[in-house]
Amino acid sequence: MTRIGLLGCGRIGQVHARSIAQIEGATVSAVADAFPAPAQDLANRANAKVMDAMELINSADVDAVVIGTPTDTHYDLIHAVAKAGKAIFCEKPVDLSSDRIRDCKAVVENAGVPFLTAFNRRFDPNFADLQARLQQGQIGDTEIITIQSRDPSPPPVNYIKSSGGIFRDMMIHDLDMARFLLGENPVRVYAIGSALVDPEIGNAGDVDTAAVTLSTASGKICQITNSRRASYGYDQRIEVHGSRGMLRAENVHETTVEIATETGFARAPVQHFFLERYEAAYRAEMAHFVAAVENNTPPAPGIEDGLQAQLLADAADQSLKNGKPVDLT
Amino acid sequence: MTRIGLLGCGRIGQVHARSIAQIEGATVSAVADAFPAPAQDLANRANAKVMDAMELINSADVDAVVIGTPTDTHYDLIHAVAKAGKAIFCEKPVDLSSDRIRDCKAVVENAGVPFLTAFNRRFDPNFADLQARLQQGQIGDTEIITIQSRDPSPPPVNYIKSSGGIFRDMMIHDLDMARFLLGENPVRVYAIGSALVDPEIGNAGDVDTAAVTLSTASGKICQITNSRRASYGYDQRIEVHGSRGMLRAENVHETTVEIATETGFARAPVQHFFLERYEAAYRAEMAHFVAAVENNTPPAPGIEDGLQAQLLADAADQSLKNGKPVDLT
Amino acid sequence: MTRIGLLGCGRIGQVHARSIAQIEGATVSAVADAFPAPAQDLANRANAKVMDAMELINSADVDAVVIGTPTDTHYDLIHAVAKAGKAIFCEKPVDLSSDRIRDCKAVVENAGVPFLTAFNRRFDPNFADLQARLQQGQIGDTEIITIQSRDPSPPPVNYIKSSGGIFRDMMIHDLDMARFLLGENPVRVYAIGSALVDPEIGNAGDVDTAAVTLSTASGKICQITNSRRASYGYDQRIEVHGSRGMLRAENVHETTVEIATETGFARAPVQHFFLERYEAAYRAEMAHFVAAVENNTPPAPGIEDGLQAQLLADAADQSLKNGKPVDLT
Amino acid sequence: MTRIGLLGCGRIGQVHARSIAQIEGATVSAVADAFPAPAQDLANRANAKVMDAMELINSADVDAVVIGTPTDTHYDLIHAVAKAGKAIFCEKPVDLSSDRIRDCKAVVENAGVPFLTAFNRRFDPNFADLQARLQQGQIGDTEIITIQSRDPSPPPVNYIKSSGGIFRDMMIHDLDMARFLLGENPVRVYAIGSALVDPEIGNAGDVDTAAVTLSTASGKICQITNSRRASYGYDQRIEVHGSRGMLRAENVHETTVEIATETGFARAPVQHFFLERYEAAYRAEMAHFVAAVENNTPPAPGIEDGLQAQLLADAADQSLKNGKPVDLT
Repeated sequence: MTRIGLLGCGRIGQVHARSIAQIEGATVSAVADAFPAPAQDLANRANAKVMDAMELINSADVDAVVIGTPTDTHYDLIHAVAKAGKAIFCEKPVDLSSDRIRDCKAVVENAGVPFLTAFNRRFDPNFADLQARLQQGQIGDTEIITIQSRDPSPPPVNYIKSSGGIFRDMMIHDLDMARFLLGENPVRVYAIGSALVDPEIGNAGDVDTAAVTLSTASGKICQITNSRRASYGYDQRIEVHGSRGMLRAENVHETTVEIATETGFARAPVQHFFLERYEAAYRAEMAHFVAAVENNTPPAPGIEDGLQAQLLADAADQSLKNGKPVDLT
Repeated sequence: MTRIGLLGCGRIGQVHARSIAQIEGATVSAVADAFPAPAQDLANRANAKVMDAMELINSADVDAVVIGTPTDTHYDLIHAVAKAGKAIFCEKPVDLSSDRIRDCKAVVENAGVPFLTAFNRRFDPNFADLQARLQQGQIGDTEIITIQSRDPSPPPVNYIKSSGGIFRDMMIHDLDMARFLLGENPVRVYAIGSALVDPEIGNAGDVDTAAVTLSTASGKICQITNSRRASYGYDQRIEVHGSRGMLRAENVHETTVEIATETGFARAPVQHFFLERYEAAYRAEMAHFVAAVENNTPPAPGIEDGLQAQLLADAADQSLKNGKPVDLT
Repeated sequence: MTRIGLLGCGRIGQVHARSIAQIEGATVSAVADAFPAPAQDLANRANAKVMDAMELINSADVDAVVIGTPTDTHYDLIHAVAKAGKAIFCEKPVDLSSDRIRDCKAVVENAGVPFLTAFNRRFDPNFADLQARLQQGQIGDTEIITIQSRDPSPPPVNYIKSSGGIFRDMMIHDLDMARFLLGENPVRVYAIGSALVDPEIGNAGDVDTAAVTLSTASGKICQITNSRRASYGYDQRIEVHGSRGMLRAENVHETTVEIATETGFARAPVQHFFLERYEAAYRAEMAHFVAAVENNTPPAPGIEDGLQAQLLADAADQSLKNGKPVDLT
Repeated sequence: MTRIGLLGCGRIGQVHARSIAQIEGATVSAVADAFPAPAQDLANRANAKVMDAMELINSADVDAVVIGTPTDTHYDLIHAVAKAGKAIFCEKPVDLSSDRIRDCKAVVENAGVPFLTAFNRRFDPNFADLQARLQQGQIGDTEIITIQSRDPSPPPVNYIKSSGGIFRDMMIHDLDMARFLLGENPVRVYAIGSALVDPEIGNAGDVDTAAVTLSTASGKICQITNSRRASYGYDQRIEVHGSRGMLRAENVHETTVEIATETGFARAPVQHFFLERYEAAYRAEMAHFVAAVENNTPPAPGIEDGLQAQLLADAADQSLKNGKPVDLT
């Protein structure tokens, strides 16, 4: 039985608690949160103890720790859990600064503790199946990847201000997906972007509509677009063109119902809410983490993946500001 | 060069003239119609001569005859063309009476002339592909066939009155398709129907909404539904369930464009007009006829197919009236 | 808090226990099974007590009872629970005999206890959405319903022998769906069938491939086909053609991934396992039952719906045997 | 009656002759080709005269001229036809040099003759419908355009050598489409590319896999990818994301047939041959030209559109070589 301590009892902490409840051989043994009410509430539902963060990290009842607290607390918590010698499941981004992620990486590697960077989309059954087929060579060599990723609606401008910008906050998922699918680190990043959705986002120094082009040393190409708005739902699509064919993962619609009338054929929007869209992904991600802890194998994506995605986001940010592609070394 | 005489210069005659213009090695040499204007018009466009029907049938410039005149004239014309020893392309239905089709069959077989019953749907690229795959055994043995066939809107009640009823006028295409796909003659026919679209159709003694179930000696099942109304276009679909899988031919939409908005995803209606929907089928049908004439091979579907479909329509009509299945021997 | 007692701890009992665990305000308080091991196992997982059936039914800790035991036990258990004055959630079929269902109905109605016949497909989000749109008049008046229902593979012949036959065992779901969508009781039933999948099923006196046509007094038509085999998954589709359009609910595929190669475009099979396909339906069904108990409203489908579906299955069985349609009064 | 002279009787000249044959009020009156055989052949089929190029241009029997000769002859022919004061339908590219297109533009505008640059894809019913909906504001303001354009297989390397490179030869269609849809000229072009399909293409100084990002002054973004290879057919897709939704035009498949077996669901490849894929577009393009000549309205796209697309292709070429975005003024 893997006994898991949850740091952070907000929306994402609750998601992880539900996932753990469905995994044989795992249980939530302790929870911690800066606010007592959500901690107590989650503890009741999970039949777990409320502790404070340091108590939880060092508790003899906790084998592994899920970090689901605000991003600016990750750095210290990772250090503490690594010191306690326990496995770490850390929400993305690990940190908004690449240098600080490098620090965390050194600490984690020195401590020799398992570390999962929670890029949940790798575990989506559709994207995971696409990647597995790619690896099996079903379409030959990868040549062009196209990733479309659009949120149903923009977050509040206050959130934008502390988010690190669209590349570190939103596109980082797609940058990780690009790495996952390319099987090769990009060497050049070109980004453009505009504030078309909400001028306040532009006033806050960010963009809400962005496109990035990645290229690799072997000549592979990846195009990513992001928008903070999609009236028709949470638009999450990937397409890979290879030497022998094409693979694509389409959106998930709310139902399979289609209506035909004199104006044509209509079907439902795609699922709007990311927790619904990625419910299975969150479950598979946690199951992977628990299995890695039990079998003492390194979870993936690891902290190096968290770092590499961040470096791509940094490069995209720099490219947008300079109007030139950025070379990575 | 196969020189073709066209009997009937109405809508369907014009379709066949256009098809012939696109076939290398075939030409329209003569046309005839009860009305001079359409005959002259078509003759001008096709660079052909206007003749009267008997003159055309016996002309030394005519190798084969397309009969596209009103149904009640087919009988005499088939007799005349057979007597002239020329190949016959005859629009469906051959006649509204099975007995009279039997007479035609005897005459045609005695004369030894090639005869095509113009069940155009067999030549639709989609349905033809489905049937070819079925024959190749791609889904094993046929078990259940489902045919949906719906017109965009009902014909005038006056047309209904002389049409022979929905089974002989409309479902006959589907009954022929059933035979084409089953590879076996049905032994039992059960029909139900209602006048839901237009009560005047009911008053005229016909139905506009009908369902037929066919069963064969080996236990295969075919379900057909017809409606005289479909707001979303000319609905023409076939599905075959076999021992190792399923084959289906979907509708043809007006465009491939899809729009997504907050209410969902919408695409175009299916093509409404049968001449547009089956344009390629008409062309392939005529090319098949010309090739059969040139190579002296029997065209298919032949007059026996015309007869068998009619017998099924007769049985369906009888079943509807009696409220009981009809056994065929 | 609605405290539920589970009679039967097999596969379907476990499904219901999982559903209850996800419903706020409901809990499994007691379980019973003829075999001690599965009862104890489920009790442990649900934190419930093991009781024997009569103890459970009369326990002060049980507000409502889920009957998930073998069909031949339903009759006595329904009588007992009704006598205890508690709400009943009963798996389908209520009984293999319509007369015995009538007895149960009288007892349940006399006792005034809420009763749900567990036709789970009514609660599938796709089919429920289709039915809601139908009721809203989105396609006008219903004219033709087509239901395709095919299992991935046939059950063992021993199961077939005690199943009551394909109409009572398998098609009963589709017959209930037909009633749900027609909004009117069929007045005539015509059935045909064959043993094409497994000759042993034929030897056992049953068929594995069947088609039924239902017609109503107002002239609506419903066609249903069943097969005990579908290589491509658990095929569950519904289409309704109405005066102003068409509604259809398509299958649920395993993933949204599509691969394109020189042979064409390919996507995943449809979900094979009924518990996966109808997971959301089982959850919604139980939530509906719990809400009905809490709010003291009658659950639907009720015992009358269980009876009517059975009468249609009886009629289909009779029609198959006699080769004639059966009129219902 | 508009009497059209065809310069060039190769594959594309024959396409235009077939289109003209289907347009009421237009006829091919004369043809010319550097080789006598194809000229005579086409003249026979179209019932037209064979002339030499200058004779045709100045013939009193020719009202308008279609230039379908090799690209390097366009310049002189455009000058000659403009001097003769006749309408011009000119295949793309107008010329490989932007400066020479500017010369042509001056000559054409001075002569005041109608000029159509034959970007046939604007006339594809799918893309034309998409653009019309965009203009009607069906998805609000355009924000992101994604164009996927892939040939089934690469041309011979000898063709590549004189083609002007992938941007001027292949992507020019997509660059014109981008302008057509953006409604605004791009101000920045970034291109990357690789020779992944055939190293000989790389040796010839060209690429076969390319991606371009365009941005406009108002912040709109367009991403285009090209590949010289697509095993699954001629891949031609467009997607536009706007402030209120999304519009996309999908590929055209060879048939609508789908087969389902235990490995999943499969449908046909997309049409492979550009003349088949764009048959309707070629017809609509010629009809538009004839109508413009008849009504004395300017055809679109005009010579300015030919120039602007070429300038984008030049910029993409330069960006690829320099590794930097190119600003257009």
